[in-house]
Amino acid sequence: MSGRAYLDHNATTPLRPEARAAMIGAMDVLGNPSSVHAEGRAAKALVERARAQVTAAFGADGADVIFTSSATEAAALALAGRGLSAGGIEHDAVAAWTGPVLPVDSMGQVRVEDPAQSCVQLANSETGILQELPEGLAVSDMTQGFGKLPVAFNWSGVGMALISAHKLGGPKGVGALVVRRGTEVSARIRGGGQEMGRRSGTENVTGIAGFGAAAEAAARDLAAGVWDRVAELRDKLEAAIADGSKETIFVGKDARRLPNTSCFITPGWKGETQVMQMDLAGFAISAGSACSSGKVKASRVLAAMGFDEAMAGSAIRVSLGPDTTEDEIQRFARAWLARHEKFRARAA
Amino acid sequence: MSGRAYLDHNATTPLRPEARAAMIGAMDVLGNPSSVHAEGRAAKALVERARAQVTAAFGADGADVIFTSSATEAAALALAGRGLSAGGIEHDAVAAWTGPVLPVDSMGQVRVEDPAQSCVQLANSETGILQELPEGLAVSDMTQGFGKLPVAFNWSGVGMALISAHKLGGPKGVGALVVRRGTEVSARIRGGGQEMGRRSGTENVTGIAGFGAAAEAAARDLAAGVWDRVAELRDKLEAAIADGSKETIFVGKDARRLPNTSCFITPGWKGETQVMQMDLAGFAISAGSACSSGKVKASRVLAAMGFDEAMAGSAIRVSLGPDTTEDEIQRFARAWLARHEKFRARAA
Repeated sequence: MSGRAYLDHNATTPLRPEARAAMIGAMDVLGNPSSVHAEGRAAKALVERARAQVTAAFGADGADVIFTSSATEAAALALAGRGLSAGGIEHDAVAAWTGPVLPVDSMGQVRVEDPAQSCVQLANSETGILQELPEGLAVSDMTQGFGKLPVAFNWSGVGMALISAHKLGGPKGVGALVVRRGTEVSARIRGGGQEMGRRSGTENVTGIAGFGAAAEAAARDLAAGVWDRVAELRDKLEAAIADGSKETIFVGKDARRLPNTSCFITPGWKGETQVMQMDLAGFAISAGSACSSGKVKASRVLAAMGFDEAMAGSAIRVSLGPDTTEDEIQRFARAWLARHEKFRARAA
Repeated sequence: MSGRAYLDHNATTPLRPEARAAMIGAMDVLGNPSSVHAEGRAAKALVERARAQVTAAFGADGADVIFTSSATEAAALALAGRGLSAGGIEHDAVAAWTGPVLPVDSMGQVRVEDPAQSCVQLANSETGILQELPEGLAVSDMTQGFGKLPVAFNWSGVGMALISAHKLGGPKGVGALVVRRGTEVSARIRGGGQEMGRRSGTENVTGIAGFGAAAEAAARDLAAGVWDRVAELRDKLEAAIADGSKETIFVGKDARRLPNTSCFITPGWKGETQVMQMDLAGFAISAGSACSSGKVKASRVLAAMGFDEAMAGSAIRVSLGPDTTEDEIQRFARAWLARHEKFRARAA
């Protein structure tokens, strides 16, 4: 009943039991996948098995799955030096390498002019808002969508996609760039020629095995309808919050959204303060995007959608996981509303 | 008594129990190290604990340890765009980014003219030969030395060093670039600002925890003299081989070498063939450097030392670990000599 509730699944997710078991199994396979002896071949087989699992879960049969250390590294591999356009709602890892900024409307939709020269996310990590990906899109960041939505690389029509293990129950520190077979990719990490010459360095065999197992389990959960239940819980949460706080605005409520994400603004109540108060109360949530310094900036995503700094600074994100319970949601809503009442009293 | 003997520790090493335990422990810490809530701070603490362990084991107090996904990535981070000089004996991950090739003598020693513009390895992965690192050296690849030799970053006088977890009993897929505090490093993976802004992407928390624990255990083993025993075994191996095969040449036998490495050439008997025959006989060894395609090329390292292609193509590397037993060495020598006899009979 009590205990902490983790409601920050868009930041990272708990390791799935299948991933944990695969990782522990991989720890006993000692070879280097580049070695030709039996130990090396066994390690190579683990990597290739995981590649097949990710390929199947991501609907990418016939495409190349290039394992990286993160979606962030995959973004650098896909985007550096290409000068693609992207909206202001993209993740920092994409914004770091993209040039002209595409306009975003108040509903969070990016207006793409030249798909072949653009990078567009599938789902926004802060608001959960989904994009309609135009045919012939060069690159898509599918990090938040993969595992939560029925997305298939081969049906998406994109040239390249970025994905991450730790957003779907795999380990932190593993991602992939998925490209149509034969797409030229200029390696940024060179030397050993691993990953079809596109990404050198001895493979993170343990982590990659975990990614494969997690992707398979995530696809199974998705097919079983797990996220429909999560969406109901998210809607109940929003109803409870709206019921007790008339001024709270739910970002993207009328847009197509991820099933697990709720981003809401309570004008004047700083998101950072809400995160700290809720943390003390036993709930892990976030405000805008977590940045590495441990500080919290006003959301760039909300600013791109036209919210002013005060509004963007008063947002929090609650993101649910496949195991989130109704009890956790109800407890969260009660705790948040109690603190909201105090905030209102102070503000009055 | 029987069972396979793994004698390819320079390619990769078995996971130490301490690293395994640390990794399994880290799997239960679910937060993203960039998140400000309790779960995030717990994950951050694991990363910082590992950083302290690696710093201590590597004698790098006061320096910056930047975690990467491999020494190969660390090489790209340290070397790309700088045009440093390096000898032909360097690893492919270094050769990919270095320019003018420095001369190497027949003893395997690199002649450095301008240390501030050069990259020199501490120990060669194929021959085990050690270099005298000149004062003021820009970059050193210490991947093979760290954990086997009493090396300290702060005493080495180098500006930057590359290290790897899986060469000292940590997991594959984790490395680090170690730099003097405040050294400017241009990030190649950007976005989140992790690793002091030098390397973005959510950290491989599990792997990093394993690196820390392995580095600590390796330093303890080193201090306890474990490698002295290994060097004795290596010398016994070479004595047994030399006893039965007069024409075999031991590369670097008169040079300062790693305690665990033996590289030997048996003219006319292809290294690739030896590796396959010994693999079938239950021994994992290597020929030259393993390359990712699963094929074996004649050693670039031996060519740089002046061996012709036929000689370089007839080399194998046997590399021992801290747990290698005398029985394994004796069995290896017997099995190798039996196959050597057949090779001689065919050649005659």
